[in-house]
Amino acid sequence: MKKQQQKNSTKPLKVIPLGGLNEIGKNMTLLEYGNDIIIIDCGLSFPGDEMYGIDNVIPDFTYLQKNASKVRGLIITHGHEDHIGGIPFLLKTLNVPVYGTRLTLGLVGNKLKEHGITAKMININAGDTIKLGVFTVETIRTTHSIADAVCFAIDTPVGTVFHTGDFKVDYTPVDGEPIDLSRFAEIGRRGVKLLMMDSTNVLRPGFTASERVVGQTLENIFREVKSRIIIATFSSNVHRVQKIINTAVKFKRKVAISGRSMENVVSLAIELGYLSVPQGVLVDINKIKNIADKNLVIITTGSQGEPMSALARMATNDHKSVQIRKGDCVILSSTPVPGNEKTVSNVVNLLFEKGAEVIYSDIADIHVSGHACREELKLMHSLIRPEYFMPVHGEYRHLKTHADLAAELGMKRDHIFILENGDCLTVGKRKVSKTENVAPAEAVLVDGFGVGDVGNIVLRDRKLLSESGLIIIVAAIEKASNMVVSGPDIISRGFVYVRENEDLIEAARTICDEVLEKYTSQGVSDWNVLKNKTRDALKSFIYENTGRTPVILPIFMEI
Amino acid sequence: MKKQQQKNSTKPLKVIPLGGLNEIGKNMTLLEYGNDIIIIDCGLSFPGDEMYGIDNVIPDFTYLQKNASKVRGLIITHGHEDHIGGIPFLLKTLNVPVYGTRLTLGLVGNKLKEHGITAKMININAGDTIKLGVFTVETIRTTHSIADAVCFAIDTPVGTVFHTGDFKVDYTPVDGEPIDLSRFAEIGRRGVKLLMMDSTNVLRPGFTASERVVGQTLENIFREVKSRIIIATFSSNVHRVQKIINTAVKFKRKVAISGRSMENVVSLAIELGYLSVPQGVLVDINKIKNIADKNLVIITTGSQGEPMSALARMATNDHKSVQIRKGDCVILSSTPVPGNEKTVSNVVNLLFEKGAEVIYSDIADIHVSGHACREELKLMHSLIRPEYFMPVHGEYRHLKTHADLAAELGMKRDHIFILENGDCLTVGKRKVSKTENVAPAEAVLVDGFGVGDVGNIVLRDRKLLSESGLIIIVAAIEKASNMVVSGPDIISRGFVYVRENEDLIEAARTICDEVLEKYTSQGVSDWNVLKNKTRDALKSFIYENTGRTPVILPIFMEI
Repeated sequence: MKKQQQKNSTKPLKVIPLGGLNEIGKNMTLLEYGNDIIIIDCGLSFPGDEMYGIDNVIPDFTYLQKNASKVRGLIITHGHEDHIGGIPFLLKTLNVPVYGTRLTLGLVGNKLKEHGITAKMININAGDTIKLGVFTVETIRTTHSIADAVCFAIDTPVGTVFHTGDFKVDYTPVDGEPIDLSRFAEIGRRGVKLLMMDSTNVLRPGFTASERVVGQTLENIFREVKSRIIIATFSSNVHRVQKIINTAVKFKRKVAISGRSMENVVSLAIELGYLSVPQGVLVDINKIKNIADKNLVIITTGSQGEPMSALARMATNDHKSVQIRKGDCVILSSTPVPGNEKTVSNVVNLLFEKGAEVIYSDIADIHVSGHACREELKLMHSLIRPEYFMPVHGEYRHLKTHADLAAELGMKRDHIFILENGDCLTVGKRKVSKTENVAPAEAVLVDGFGVGDVGNIVLRDRKLLSESGLIIIVAAIEKASNMVVSGPDIISRGFVYVRENEDLIEAARTICDEVLEKYTSQGVSDWNVLKNKTRDALKSFIYENTGRTPVILPIFMEI
Repeated sequence: MKKQQQKNSTKPLKVIPLGGLNEIGKNMTLLEYGNDIIIIDCGLSFPGDEMYGIDNVIPDFTYLQKNASKVRGLIITHGHEDHIGGIPFLLKTLNVPVYGTRLTLGLVGNKLKEHGITAKMININAGDTIKLGVFTVETIRTTHSIADAVCFAIDTPVGTVFHTGDFKVDYTPVDGEPIDLSRFAEIGRRGVKLLMMDSTNVLRPGFTASERVVGQTLENIFREVKSRIIIATFSSNVHRVQKIINTAVKFKRKVAISGRSMENVVSLAIELGYLSVPQGVLVDINKIKNIADKNLVIITTGSQGEPMSALARMATNDHKSVQIRKGDCVILSSTPVPGNEKTVSNVVNLLFEKGAEVIYSDIADIHVSGHACREELKLMHSLIRPEYFMPVHGEYRHLKTHADLAAELGMKRDHIFILENGDCLTVGKRKVSKTENVAPAEAVLVDGFGVGDVGNIVLRDRKLLSESGLIIIVAAIEKASNMVVSGPDIISRGFVYVRENEDLIEAARTICDEVLEKYTSQGVSDWNVLKNKTRDALKSFIYENTGRTPVILPIFMEI
């Protein structure tokens, strides 16, 4: 018995991030001790520009599938896509109970419904402690740009691991439930072995403003504006939606909701009691005609300029119930996520053209970040006072800068670890070390129903096709005589507008004809040779005449 | 004679913008009076995300080609791409003399050399007055993020037209030649009929900082840093390059230049006397090995994160002479142009990973804009005091906000005109009015050597191909018997990785086989029907099994 205990107590904890390092998005981290694994979050990220046709990007679950019997549970910090978006895909490969606060699980539930799957979901409240195998997980209230967000303090045989999730230090959140700083301090005093902390805003000095600032700006706008008000924001930001509704009530306006995700989240949040809306305030978006402009607020999706969103449809007269009119006051209560700057300014221009007054974050304090800036990060470090630190949630520049910040606060450099996805931090009682490439952690691409079946070769082909299109040379060759009996014909897509370039296409056809004639008459019957000769000749001809390099695809049929 | 004069004096001036309205880029404006046309600037813009494979975007020159005999000259405000990039394409369709300051013409000359064309180029100096047909053009010194920028005050029979070009109000430019505010005031007092003014920064409050601020930041960095310094900036910003060289000399560092456009502009600017470099300061980038890190500055292209730029190649160990090393201090003296945020952060992350210290505009005052902010715009309006105003250089939100700003300053709303490219402002002695769609002004796409041959159909095909790739069904059909004698075969590109999806491809082939068999045996010999039936069946099968919608291309050969 004693030996067993000793053996156990010398075993190290493995901490394996599967996502969220060197990237913003698809956050996921495993803790493994002996026969127990718990998972913290399971997010997705949105495809980069070069990921042609890809819908979503999720973490690689291979390591978990191999160790399926060890997995005790998935614990979720909050309900944003980059923390829950991968869950349906995980649950399709692994049966694991999901732990989260009520709003978080409500959002996960919506997602599972869309995918037609069910799961064991266990509700936890901030302050609860749950036991998962060898791990004891305490949940602590934090503040973020979504309600019901928590941090985790996880007791393990080698000490406490603290994971902040996404957070900011908001002393005056809309729901009146501030971040539980005193509990952080207690846990810090008790001793924390390893801290993992959100690095998203580490490049920004100072403090992130409180959600209350947005409330004040909203009140000022509502006081001034006498026309219709249309506000686009993130549907998951229930606090902001609540603040908009409160302000609407104060200024005697009705509220209509537009956009699928906004409708879903609002009805879920009302059902779960996260949104409180006085009777008679909400009106059906299809029945707003009878309400005077000065008595109406529309809350909508589309704050990122998404082309199919409700706001974009309003701006292009493509929305069933709402068209933007001269005098409308449109508020984009958000900042563009990096990469979305252009789609946002497109929508802003459309709104301007329709005669709307547009208020966005360049102009007014109409949005605050959900992530802690440098001074807040310092506060959190000083409360938790960990022995070891691993920055998470960030591109390399964020992780590196956060590591530097920890060092500035007095941490020893060799107690700070920057990992990559798939690396393992081995946390022993005395020694902590990093091992590279322990788990597969390449991005897994989701395209339609396909998960992981689109790889670099397919993406490269899509890129090439998108750049200069495609030319197909098709011919039928009689095997016996080695003669071309039909074709060659030229078919192109995405290359030039054929009707206006018939001469070029005909010249290209002639080139192929001559090459085939030359080599078949010389007795060359190896089709790979014929294809290469034709492709090369056509490629040179096209480049010399157009400066372009389309994909060239010779297709020969055997007769 | 008197009658003739009277007739002339009642003729209106036409002002036709061909680019630069509702967009940032490809600035170009025509003034037409009777038999005389002058062109102000001829820029390009960079392709948007949806313009697959497009290299550049230029204005439509159709109106000018139709009125070729009237064109008296092209006058250029400064040498940035969005003001000169379209010139080679214009000159290929139209023989027109080009007027510009020395540096501007130097940059135009480089561009013409690349295109293998020549043109009549006439040098002008700030302060010069030139006569072009009925127009008398006075050039006035202004300040911008490139040296030798000018405004134009153009005397026409209906009054003076003032075009600011791009500008900021810099009282302390690096070359000591500040913007000529007193001349603006004189011209304003004399009376200006129509003002066209840069709107790029109208959304930003206050004043744009002077280039001198960057100089101070540079000095502070050079004083602190003991390692190698690598600075990326816009090659055309000769003043900033001069400041970097001055600072290098002060701190006893040699300067090496990297990147084709930086090398070209630096040698041009030295040749023309815009850059002054003491003997022995410049060193060949291929011979920097013998210079101690603390004695070296490298000035390079790549401040926008362009993947093939010198800086990006340094960061990926792909540069012949420079690899980023631990301790290097890399300065990005720029801000990301909208749309480039991601490429810039990619390069920043790479530099961080290589161990460089990276200083960019988020962190230090290492870049200032070249465009006037609101208070500067107000100053210019107050000096010029025009009768009519047309905001130029901006998306719709900029133009609208600039129009509002002019109204706030006291201009009558009906004296402010927001045009679209191709519209005409008809300026009579007494009446000014707008006519829509006078000249074709759609964006003309340049792809390889092709100008305007890629339109919406080709772009749509490239987009579709990029999203889910392509499936080709190929079969040979004997005409006489209406029987499939070879195939159908399936060929795909950018759809799935074929080797891992042989079952899917074989099932798809079987579907096509069955459809063809069914309809040919029923005697259907109309190939359009056969193609549609096959395409539809395959489309449904693919969508049901993969959730994707590749381009499907049936190709049948007649035997």
